[in-house]
Amino acid sequence: MKINTILTPAVVDELYFTGKTTIAIDVLRATTTIIAALNNGAKEIIPVGSLEFVHKASGDTFGGKTIRGGEKNMKKIDGFDLGNSPLEYTRETIEGKSIIFFTTNGTKAITKAKYSTALYLMAFSNLDTVVNKFANYEGDFEIICAGRNNEISLEDAVCAGMLISKLREVRDDIELTDPALIAYTLYWKFGKNIPALFDIAEHGKLLKENGFYDDIKYCSQLSIIDKIPVFSNNSLKFLN
Amino acid sequence: MKINTILTPAVVDELYFTGKTTIAIDVLRATTTIIAALNNGAKEIIPVGSLEFVHKASGDTFGGKTIRGGEKNMKKIDGFDLGNSPLEYTRETIEGKSIIFFTTNGTKAITKAKYSTALYLMAFSNLDTVVNKFANYEGDFEIICAGRNNEISLEDAVCAGMLISKLREVRDDIELTDPALIAYTLYWKFGKNIPALFDIAEHGKLLKENGFYDDIKYCSQLSIIDKIPVFSNNSLKFLN
Repeated sequence: MKINTILTPAVVDELYFTGKTTIAIDVLRATTTIIAALNNGAKEIIPVGSLEFVHKASGDTFGGKTIRGGEKNMKKIDGFDLGNSPLEYTRETIEGKSIIFFTTNGTKAITKAKYSTALYLMAFSNLDTVVNKFANYEGDFEIICAGRNNEISLEDAVCAGMLISKLREVRDDIELTDPALIAYTLYWKFGKNIPALFDIAEHGKLLKENGFYDDIKYCSQLSIIDKIPVFSNNSLKFLN
Repeated sequence: MKINTILTPAVVDELYFTGKTTIAIDVLRATTTIIAALNNGAKEIIPVGSLEFVHKASGDTFGGKTIRGGEKNMKKIDGFDLGNSPLEYTRETIEGKSIIFFTTNGTKAITKAKYSTALYLMAFSNLDTVVNKFANYEGDFEIICAGRNNEISLEDAVCAGMLISKLREVRDDIELTDPALIAYTLYWKFGKNIPALFDIAEHGKLLKENGFYDDIKYCSQLSIIDKIPVFSNNSLKFLN
C-alpha cells in the first residue's frame, strides 16, 4: 500500500484525482466543522469552491431548508447564516438542513479532489475511525491537506502523519512518498500534544489572535466522533 | 529576521518574489551542477524555464562560445552538449563558456524567482558560505526548493533546514513560517547523514536506479566550494 500526501492543493490539478482514493484534511477548521455538523444531524453539506457558486446554489429552490455557512479570511461572510466554527453547528440550528459551505481553503481542497473514485474527510475528531477503515484497505490512497492560501499548514500535515503512523502500527506493507514521509516525521515531532501544536502552527496562532479559543479547543479533540463524511453527487454525508 | 521556505514552486507565482531576497535550492542536481560549473570557470550560466527558449537563446549569435546543458526526465536532451551531472562540467569542457541551462525542476524554480531583488543559489556544496553571508543579514528572506514535478523533495527541504539550523546557531532573532519550521524539523531528522538521506529520498532512489551513483556522491559533499551564484541580467555568476 502506497500513501501519498499532498501537503498543499497547489501541487495538483483536479484531474490528478481521477481513479484515486482520497482523504481530505482541514483541521482548522473546515473538515472538523463538517464532521461536527453531520454529527449534529445536518442532512448534507454541499462544499463549494467559489463564493459565486454559493449564491447560485442557494437560491429559493431549496424551500427554506438550506443554510449557508463558511468563512472568508476567518470571518463569516455577509449574508451567510453561519461561520466556520464547529460550535455554531448545533443540532437546534442545522438538524435536517442542507448546508452550502464555503471556506477559504478547506472547501477548495475538497472540491479540487472531487474526481476521486472515493473521497473521505478527516480531522483529529474522527481520526481513529479513518484508521480503522483503512487498516485492511487494499490499494493506494492520497491524503490532501488544505493548507492555507496555497501554503502548507503544519497542523494538517501532522494530522496526515498521525493517520500514517497509526496505520503503520497495524500493517507493515506501507510505502511512503517523500511528502508522506514528511507528514509522518512532522507527526512524531509535533503530534503528541495537539494543543501545543496549535500554539506553534501559524494558523493556530492566527485563530487565537482573532479570539477563536473555543474553536481551537474543539478542533484539538482526538477521535470524538466515529463517522466519516464521504463525497458523492456533490454533497457530503456520513458513510454508512 | 523571518525566514520562509517555499517547499515547492507550485505554491507561488513569479510576482510573489518582487522585493524579496531569495535562495534557490535544487540539490539533485541543478544548483549543485551550476555551482560546480562556475567553480570550474564557466563564464556564466543562463538558466531557462522552457526548452523552447533554449533553442531561441542558443542560436549562432554566440559565436561558438555557448554550450547547451541540462536534462529532461534525468536524461541529456537531444542536441545538447552536456547533461545535468556536475561531473561533466570540467574546466576543460566549459572554461570561459556561457552555458544555456535547462532542467526539469531546477531552472524552472530559479526562473520563477527571477523578480527577486536578490537571488542566490545554494546546495550542500556551498552551504557554509551561504550561512556566513546571512549570519549578519538584515531583513527577511525566502528559500525556494525546486522539488520534483511540482512535488516536495525531501533532500531540498533538508538542505533548506540545514541552512536554517546553522543560522540559528549564530543568531537568536530568527522567526520561521510553518514551511520553514517543517524544513528545520526535517533537517534534524534526516540531515545528519546526507548519503543516507539520498537512500531514503525518492529522487535519490530514482537517480540510483538510473545509475547516477557518482552524481549522488558528488551532491552529498558538504561545503566544498566557497562561492555563491547570484542571478543578475538573466544569468548566473559567482557573487564577488
